[in-house]
Amino acid sequence: MKSDIILLGHGSGGKLSHQLLDEVIIPRLSGVAQKDQNDAAVLAAAGRRLAFTTDSYVVDPIFFPGGNIGDLAVNGTVNDLAMCGAAPLYLSVGLILEEGLAVADLIRILDSMKRAATAAGVQIVTGDTKVVPRGKADKIFINTAGIGVFEHDLEILGSGARVGDQVLVNGTLGDHGMAVLASREGLDLQSDIKSDSTALNGMVDDLVQTLGPALHVLRDPTRGGAATTLKEIALQSGVAITLEEKNLPVTAAVKGACAILGLDPLFVANEGKLLAIVAPERAEAALATMRRHPAGKGATLIGEVSGTSAGKVSMRTAIGGLRAIEMLAGEQLPRIC
Amino acid sequence: MKSDIILLGHGSGGKLSHQLLDEVIIPRLSGVAQKDQNDAAVLAAAGRRLAFTTDSYVVDPIFFPGGNIGDLAVNGTVNDLAMCGAAPLYLSVGLILEEGLAVADLIRILDSMKRAATAAGVQIVTGDTKVVPRGKADKIFINTAGIGVFEHDLEILGSGARVGDQVLVNGTLGDHGMAVLASREGLDLQSDIKSDSTALNGMVDDLVQTLGPALHVLRDPTRGGAATTLKEIALQSGVAITLEEKNLPVTAAVKGACAILGLDPLFVANEGKLLAIVAPERAEAALATMRRHPAGKGATLIGEVSGTSAGKVSMRTAIGGLRAIEMLAGEQLPRIC
Repeated sequence: MKSDIILLGHGSGGKLSHQLLDEVIIPRLSGVAQKDQNDAAVLAAAGRRLAFTTDSYVVDPIFFPGGNIGDLAVNGTVNDLAMCGAAPLYLSVGLILEEGLAVADLIRILDSMKRAATAAGVQIVTGDTKVVPRGKADKIFINTAGIGVFEHDLEILGSGARVGDQVLVNGTLGDHGMAVLASREGLDLQSDIKSDSTALNGMVDDLVQTLGPALHVLRDPTRGGAATTLKEIALQSGVAITLEEKNLPVTAAVKGACAILGLDPLFVANEGKLLAIVAPERAEAALATMRRHPAGKGATLIGEVSGTSAGKVSMRTAIGGLRAIEMLAGEQLPRIC
Repeated sequence: MKSDIILLGHGSGGKLSHQLLDEVIIPRLSGVAQKDQNDAAVLAAAGRRLAFTTDSYVVDPIFFPGGNIGDLAVNGTVNDLAMCGAAPLYLSVGLILEEGLAVADLIRILDSMKRAATAAGVQIVTGDTKVVPRGKADKIFINTAGIGVFEHDLEILGSGARVGDQVLVNGTLGDHGMAVLASREGLDLQSDIKSDSTALNGMVDDLVQTLGPALHVLRDPTRGGAATTLKEIALQSGVAITLEEKNLPVTAAVKGACAILGLDPLFVANEGKLLAIVAPERAEAALATMRRHPAGKGATLIGEVSGTSAGKVSMRTAIGGLRAIEMLAGEQLPRIC
């Protein structure tokens, strides 16, 4: 670590985050090798495979177009379980409340957590509530941890991409991050950008059923966006991934807002998207399966696993050139989830 | 709820906390009835019983005599699993870091989490790290969630106390809370009060083995102290509990510090203590079992389940009177865990 204090960029999901995790946190706590890091841990308990994951949510503002910190905290953890191919069953909820938070805001958040849990078919079974003095937190932070079970024997891991595989996404990129950012900065973009926050476990179930072992990798491109997530997969699998710029689905509104703010939608967080890397002969079937879900109407092929490498991701631009995609060095969008 | 904003007292573990939980949070998220609320949820997954729990730690200061926020976060969640009679297996760790935290402090905390996990025989298997801007958190908050499995068929629940049962504790009361408070307030108590933070799962294993179905209730008296925990048990079991003041184990140092600060050690948090409510004929065996552990040397009988009631707890004072014990109305010690 080059810095001897924690910087905002250590939470961005980019290079600094990976440095903090790989050099400081993971070697001390778990020792899990980078290539084995997935959205959830897969464990043996009671003679069966379980998935277990956790996420803390510190999004600012706590209410934004398309959602709030509550449904985000449920959907995010449900999706982390689903990305390993597990069926999410149970959630825990840890609330850290700032003294002075309006009880009405808390109620609105709790109600949307319950609605999100019901929609995803998971139960909130245990919880904890702490209160800290005014100015020692920011309104509300929520941690959710989740347990899922496996109803199949597939191993869907970040290390599973193979040369020739196709890279699919279930819809447009960057909506969540831009909705939060526009809301935080008070930008009146006249454009109705909404967070895509939603649970994807139903879609994953169907992909597992339809594709079986042809489903190689699933990952939700949250912090750091699709670019960072694909870079992680390329590193874990030891492959090169090539994206087609003309195929990247981004709404005109998100494209416009990103242009104004100098951001690249490929690095902006999503909360209702998955990247699926599948055997080429099953790519069409996977797209058709995604499109049967409301959150998958815009499913499309965005690239392919183009060779072996130590983690190269590039984009074939509209004019035919190849541009290297790297993780962001520092802070792009703080507190986006 | 009488207040329309969150007050510090809503996090104290006393009456206001219970009101927030019972009127606002639990009905919205899980709907678990009060009598069925335990330190961990007991779930069916993969055809077996699992225990699942979560706690966020916001203790101030983050380093205190006898421990720090890191080992506290591991021991607390291990103990919540153990209090249901489960064998703790896996932990998740969610870190919320304030920009500017010294990396050296983070490393010290992570190292003590790892040591605590190793000592308790649990694995840290998944995690998440967020960073918030300076002034939006207080150095570091840690959430741990945990999964345990049951190696027996006993049901050890807050609703299990029966008339005639004996109430035991494994050592002195109030050490953790007074260590944190003295450290926070910069009190030089010349007394070496240390947190009792430790994992109790080994002791619980032995109690389960030795007592079997004679082991009725286990609960760790953390926030709100032994008084609040016994009140909760009395309410859940529909019994009256009578404590013997002369039997309450409190060190002279804690007694002195409490006297200076106007606190009652019965309401001060512990992080390495358990209250065991057991069939009377097995009380001596339970005490002997506790005393075989380093954290149980001071195990002693402090009271009994004296009748049926809607949750009455009283204390027979040194001069023979009976004093009613109620939950604290508001804030006693904020940010003690």
